[in-house]
Amino acid sequence: ERLAPKLEDWRGRLHGETPILLLPGSTQEVSAAIAICAEARLAVTPQGGNTGLVGGATPQGEVLLSLERMRGVREVDAANDSLIVESGVTLSAVHDLAEEAGRFFPLSLGSQGTATIGGLMSTNAGGVAVLRYGMMRDLVLGIEAVLPDGRVWNRLRGLRKDNTGYDLKQLFIGAEGTLGVITAATLKLFARPAEKIVGAVGVADVASAVKVLEVVKRVSGDAVTAFELMPQCGVDLVLEHIPDTRAPFPDRHEWIALVEMSFSRSGEGQAVMEAALGEAIEAGAANDAVIAASEAQGEAIWKLRETLPEAEKLRGPSLKHDVSSTVSATPQLIEDCTAAARRVLPGAEILAFGHVGDGNIHFNVGPPEGMSREDALARQKDVAAAIYDVVVGLGGSISAEHGVGILKSQELADRRDGPELDMMRAIKHALDPNNIMNPRMIFTDHGAPGGHARAAE
Amino acid sequence: ERLAPKLEDWRGRLHGETPILLLPGSTQEVSAAIAICAEARLAVTPQGGNTGLVGGATPQGEVLLSLERMRGVREVDAANDSLIVESGVTLSAVHDLAEEAGRFFPLSLGSQGTATIGGLMSTNAGGVAVLRYGMMRDLVLGIEAVLPDGRVWNRLRGLRKDNTGYDLKQLFIGAEGTLGVITAATLKLFARPAEKIVGAVGVADVASAVKVLEVVKRVSGDAVTAFELMPQCGVDLVLEHIPDTRAPFPDRHEWIALVEMSFSRSGEGQAVMEAALGEAIEAGAANDAVIAASEAQGEAIWKLRETLPEAEKLRGPSLKHDVSSTVSATPQLIEDCTAAARRVLPGAEILAFGHVGDGNIHFNVGPPEGMSREDALARQKDVAAAIYDVVVGLGGSISAEHGVGILKSQELADRRDGPELDMMRAIKHALDPNNIMNPRMIFTDHGAPGGHARAAE
Repeated sequence: ERLAPKLEDWRGRLHGETPILLLPGSTQEVSAAIAICAEARLAVTPQGGNTGLVGGATPQGEVLLSLERMRGVREVDAANDSLIVESGVTLSAVHDLAEEAGRFFPLSLGSQGTATIGGLMSTNAGGVAVLRYGMMRDLVLGIEAVLPDGRVWNRLRGLRKDNTGYDLKQLFIGAEGTLGVITAATLKLFARPAEKIVGAVGVADVASAVKVLEVVKRVSGDAVTAFELMPQCGVDLVLEHIPDTRAPFPDRHEWIALVEMSFSRSGEGQAVMEAALGEAIEAGAANDAVIAASEAQGEAIWKLRETLPEAEKLRGPSLKHDVSSTVSATPQLIEDCTAAARRVLPGAEILAFGHVGDGNIHFNVGPPEGMSREDALARQKDVAAAIYDVVVGLGGSISAEHGVGILKSQELADRRDGPELDMMRAIKHALDPNNIMNPRMIFTDHGAPGGHARAAE
Repeated sequence: ERLAPKLEDWRGRLHGETPILLLPGSTQEVSAAIAICAEARLAVTPQGGNTGLVGGATPQGEVLLSLERMRGVREVDAANDSLIVESGVTLSAVHDLAEEAGRFFPLSLGSQGTATIGGLMSTNAGGVAVLRYGMMRDLVLGIEAVLPDGRVWNRLRGLRKDNTGYDLKQLFIGAEGTLGVITAATLKLFARPAEKIVGAVGVADVASAVKVLEVVKRVSGDAVTAFELMPQCGVDLVLEHIPDTRAPFPDRHEWIALVEMSFSRSGEGQAVMEAALGEAIEAGAANDAVIAASEAQGEAIWKLRETLPEAEKLRGPSLKHDVSSTVSATPQLIEDCTAAARRVLPGAEILAFGHVGDGNIHFNVGPPEGMSREDALARQKDVAAAIYDVVVGLGGSISAEHGVGILKSQELADRRDGPELDMMRAIKHALDPNNIMNPRMIFTDHGAPGGHARAAE
């Protein structure tokens, strides 16, 4: 009962197995557990809230080490704008702690009630506030981790400036559990925005959306905290499948951008948003725009974006790709990926949406009218290959915010040229010589626990 | 003529030597040079603008590789808020490029006309805008480097989101040339502030300054871009030694804080600064406050802070320490360091000033009245040891923004406990197995080029 949900991944596509589930309640217990595993050359898969999308927390024979019991709040230091929590604390709980301290923790994503700080660090989570505040990587001051030999490494010091050697914490953030187990973190807090204003903008194409972004950023300074883009067909899906939703405009537009601005002082937001969107319309970039007159109206616009993945799921299966490019290249990215996907699957239903403000597109491909789920899934690898070739050709990333895990390790090996993978392997080998920590992730040439394979598979 | 200034460090304390000065003009030439050095097991010291303060760019027998001819501007992408420059471009030149693109690059420090992007990356430079924009580490999207075997690693892609494996660029940033030669960088640009307002605040002690910081941050949101603290004795030094300077207040205050706020829209700054400083006075944290009524008045206040190091130099020699703690602990840090320094050198003249908004204090100790420069210098190690013991005890850093280099490597080895130095050494060995790259820096157990010493010295 306790184990079963931990062996299935968030999307229900992977089914794991483990000889044993460990539930340590303290850093000392994590340390003892890893030391025993290291001694016995047993591989370990750490798991947080198990909301990852690339299979990084699903064991396939590894010892499963869940951080769910590590929910301690070690320190809240308002004057330093920081707090220290253990890895099992959920993102929602961190939001609450920050608010109680009169502060704000900006990372925000759909699974925040379940996703934990340890998992968010290990996967360098993104979400909808990256444009202004950055990824998880940018929000961490300090880290505590248990190393692959069981030693505890404590660098929880909440310093904003520390130039004493390599910044090792940045290696552990985004390492997907391959270098050790993150047990606690010192997180940055920010001033709480006094006011948020949300607007919706109808545009004719993605290039116009990028132009709107440029205008609103310039007019408002750095007040823009989110800039999301949805195609009209995506909004239609939401309107059809999700109750209590309504179209933002009486007319249809090819694309709808969501603009959110945050202000630290009340009362100034409306005028700035009006000026920004007015200039976007005058410049010919925006065809129409509305500004939410209340918090409820703002939430209604956000709901279109937030429920889009759910609405898409209710329509049926699709092949998902989490890709990025520079912001300037996103129009090309979407155009070329669409053409590439349809060369493999003619008539495919394309749903491209997401964090255009960061150049991050969720590019999802639905089966053409009349094609079965099975037939579409059979082409999954070919569709992904066609899309990733476009992305790499444009200098983009084949995994913008979801990570590599087990699901993208082969793609990474196939497409990353030059010495980068060699360096990653050398570091993995240097810090985890017995290949104990989540050994199937990121790398394909992982070999068996207890030693690194020397040749690529 | 060309070589001599490159063999002397910024403060004139170190005199280097080198068999040869290399001046490559392209990444390809850097690559060829390093490949030859690797083949011959010749150690290499890379050098940028040579403005570092810890001897990291002064060769002692190593091949000296200057990046000064690599001044190419490869790309300015305004829509992506990014630009790509080669390592030899100065910080001032980057400021100009950003301004021409209608953008802003926030890193700012005294040596910006000479300091180069490669050096600023290799030392993770700080400066006076860290409070709002972060260190150099936070301002880099991509990197190109030549590895210790001569291979070129190009990750200049200006992506804001990329979760494909370890973030290796963060290893190279701040590595002080020990892992390779940074040849180019993709830097983040920001919206240009439309308005800056500067204020000066007289406070009774450091704890009051921290309280003022908290108030102004809360009242203004994230508009505070700098918060610097100077003791009255430091301001006196400036007034005495630097022409065209004047006291900000008619009365004397123990400490004077400089507050700078930046606003993306004109006209709102004055009122916000007034409200913030008004509240600080009301709360009893500030004793007096003035707001610059013009840009010239703002510059006059900044001049007090910026010329403080020069004024101190004109007074005479002092022992310098670049330390940090959490912002909350800075009052304790200054109090305890003062006591510790005076236990070693009774009557020492203490000058503690700097970036209190980041917890970063420049803690300088002048000889007591009547003590010679030589006698004071003879106590340098004891003074430093006493101060660093306090800093480490408070969970702070013994090198906040200057780096380790050759001057602090022993201190780092003595004071960093736990597995962190082991991890750094393992990474250094994994990426530079022949110990070619700047081998005397950061680590003390460096051994001879061509191989790592196995035992500590």
